[in-house]
Amino acid sequence: MRIRIYHASILTMEPGKEIFQGELCVEDGKIVYVGEERDGREETWDREIDAGGNLLLPGFKNAHTHSGMTLLRSYADDMPLQDWLFKQVFPMEDKLTEEDVYWGSVLANMEYLTSGITANFDMYKKIDAGAKASADMGFRTVLCGSINDFGGTVQDVEQEYLHFNQYHPLISYQIGFHAEYTTSRPLLEELAALGQKYKAPVYTHNSETKSEVEGCLERYGKTPTAFLDSLGMFEYGGGGFHCVYMSEEDLQICREKGIWVITNPSSNLKIASGIAPLSKMLQKGIRLAIGTDGAASNNCLDMFREMFLVTGLQKAVCLDAAVMDALEVLRMACTNGALAMGLVDCDVLAEGKCADLVMIDLQQPNMQPVNNMAKNIVYSGSKQNVKMTMVNGKILYEDGRFDIGVEPEEVYAKVTESITRMKKE
Amino acid sequence: MRIRIYHASILTMEPGKEIFQGELCVEDGKIVYVGEERDGREETWDREIDAGGNLLLPGFKNAHTHSGMTLLRSYADDMPLQDWLFKQVFPMEDKLTEEDVYWGSVLANMEYLTSGITANFDMYKKIDAGAKASADMGFRTVLCGSINDFGGTVQDVEQEYLHFNQYHPLISYQIGFHAEYTTSRPLLEELAALGQKYKAPVYTHNSETKSEVEGCLERYGKTPTAFLDSLGMFEYGGGGFHCVYMSEEDLQICREKGIWVITNPSSNLKIASGIAPLSKMLQKGIRLAIGTDGAASNNCLDMFREMFLVTGLQKAVCLDAAVMDALEVLRMACTNGALAMGLVDCDVLAEGKCADLVMIDLQQPNMQPVNNMAKNIVYSGSKQNVKMTMVNGKILYEDGRFDIGVEPEEVYAKVTESITRMKKE
Repeated sequence: MRIRIYHASILTMEPGKEIFQGELCVEDGKIVYVGEERDGREETWDREIDAGGNLLLPGFKNAHTHSGMTLLRSYADDMPLQDWLFKQVFPMEDKLTEEDVYWGSVLANMEYLTSGITANFDMYKKIDAGAKASADMGFRTVLCGSINDFGGTVQDVEQEYLHFNQYHPLISYQIGFHAEYTTSRPLLEELAALGQKYKAPVYTHNSETKSEVEGCLERYGKTPTAFLDSLGMFEYGGGGFHCVYMSEEDLQICREKGIWVITNPSSNLKIASGIAPLSKMLQKGIRLAIGTDGAASNNCLDMFREMFLVTGLQKAVCLDAAVMDALEVLRMACTNGALAMGLVDCDVLAEGKCADLVMIDLQQPNMQPVNNMAKNIVYSGSKQNVKMTMVNGKILYEDGRFDIGVEPEEVYAKVTESITRMKKE
Repeated sequence: MRIRIYHASILTMEPGKEIFQGELCVEDGKIVYVGEERDGREETWDREIDAGGNLLLPGFKNAHTHSGMTLLRSYADDMPLQDWLFKQVFPMEDKLTEEDVYWGSVLANMEYLTSGITANFDMYKKIDAGAKASADMGFRTVLCGSINDFGGTVQDVEQEYLHFNQYHPLISYQIGFHAEYTTSRPLLEELAALGQKYKAPVYTHNSETKSEVEGCLERYGKTPTAFLDSLGMFEYGGGGFHCVYMSEEDLQICREKGIWVITNPSSNLKIASGIAPLSKMLQKGIRLAIGTDGAASNNCLDMFREMFLVTGLQKAVCLDAAVMDALEVLRMACTNGALAMGLVDCDVLAEGKCADLVMIDLQQPNMQPVNNMAKNIVYSGSKQNVKMTMVNGKILYEDGRFDIGVEPEEVYAKVTESITRMKKE
């Protein structure tokens, strides 16, 4: 499939490169040209798209989510965290079948596409179903190990690591576990050894709530970051999801070990966890990426909301409107997300890179006038502006229509069927 | 024009009334029927719309904004507040012509429509241009007086009050001034007398920043709310825009005098003002409504973003996921906003009320599954879900297309022309 997109504004997200007018060409899933418009070349294309001046940029990367959880969207909200988790979420999750997770993941991937997201970093149970959902519809997913004391062994993680990194071109896998507070020390030690065996980064929920950090301090006399690091967990880097409550020492460890902080601002607000000190992290040279978290806690899988909050919350908390520049936030969403997940060929628009990209519709009231495209996207953008989302050279979403091998109505019927059954069980 | 919308889910927002399946009929700008579906009635309609199960609810009310300011969207961001205001915004605003404000207001109204907003409470200069923009396109606007020491007299406000309350069925006017810190005591005393003369509420920016409150305390030994109240400003109620820094005494005054608090969470984040104590206000029985503020400070005129933030920020600040229930937030956006602006016939869907309403597209990934429609809207909704926006019985926006007497492209060209000229001047 060879596609040429011309008359486009292009933001490649390569460092220092400004927005320019030009064309971008795609062949067999890769970008084969991005640059000035080339007139008079005799080439045949399967499709030529006049972008009409609209903006191409690398797709957003949802660097932390739980896709199968979409079934529980708006199922239980506005209640205290412990009740929400233990009385509502966990009992329902126990009822999930492979098929439930499959359709929940398809639904999540559809929503990602509507928000210009071209890849997700997914931590969920029944991992085969999630992987199959993405592979079937052509969506790019990095799976994340999620074992803990209540399910899974380190041998499972190793097997998944070997299996899913060979499973499908759109699927990959990173070593991970649920969290320090749900995983015993022996299991954590084994996981650290596994990471070292494969010279691989390790990912986990980290310091999401204050009580989680206090619990770890009681158990081990160390914060989660310091404790996990002391086990050799981050010898090859890795990442922490949330990182709301981080000590100076924690931040120092993140910087030294190159541990990604993957922030989830909407979720942290909605389930009352707090606000992560991102501005401080940025000043300390810590690498930041952005995730939506799952639909039970957010409830919206929308990178535009997250981008605004990443900068908006810091401005309010620091009482300084100058912190967290919009372009920096766009870099987190497009580029850093890819690097955090190990998708080193999905970070920018350049020849040889994967054709994972989004076209932003500037012909909408909220994008006008165009005083600054990047700021318009971060501060004013919404799903309504996603004109087209391409993953691996294939257009999966365009002008509100999906090309994912299944009709939306069927997906909505399937998830409704699943949740209806689960509520009755 | 007689329109019947059937096969609809309907949330009238009348107290205690649940969502039901039915139809809603509109004639000459008013709702003439809302209830169970009536089969077999022989009536002719100019248009019958099959809602396909999608949700009808009262339009959102943007209870504080500066529409003409859209020209400055993304013109100056990520900079300290004082520099932003005095070096960037004010000098540019001095260059605005009537025509600039007209087209900026048309653009803002278009964006309101895309977000399901059916009325705005607008405070801006060159008020004739803003009023004309709304009247021309069929949008409902309540104008708010904005005088201060740098422009306008109380006689102007009185004249505007008499003029614009007779000007056009879609336009009304409320007495207002910019803020305590920009308006001298004699002017404020005159304004208070004007409010009393007409037994009218008075509206103003109030306690948006900490320094504003400190300044007032230095000048008068009182907070802005207490000082203005001591002048007799709120004898017939009124409202405060922002109200981020409010003392216990301030809240007591708001409750006793029925002063509306109109919150603008995105703007308060982005220009680093802070987070208003809404949950506390609610507990004290203070009436709350929601605004977007202007596009130079937000930069997005989107009620979905504001609704999420109204509840999300309170949950995080109070560290309690149970505060600010979604339905309460929806009431602020749909019903309270109308009442705060004096639009007593635009608050709920009921016979005899104005046909100002929105249809929410539930056939989108972010609205599925439908565990709870109200929570889906507040926590997961976005502009992409606005299928139709009707003002005064006329459909102004439907399936991404506008019916406002002017083509979007022309509006975008006009605002681009304006801002380009202003940058050169």
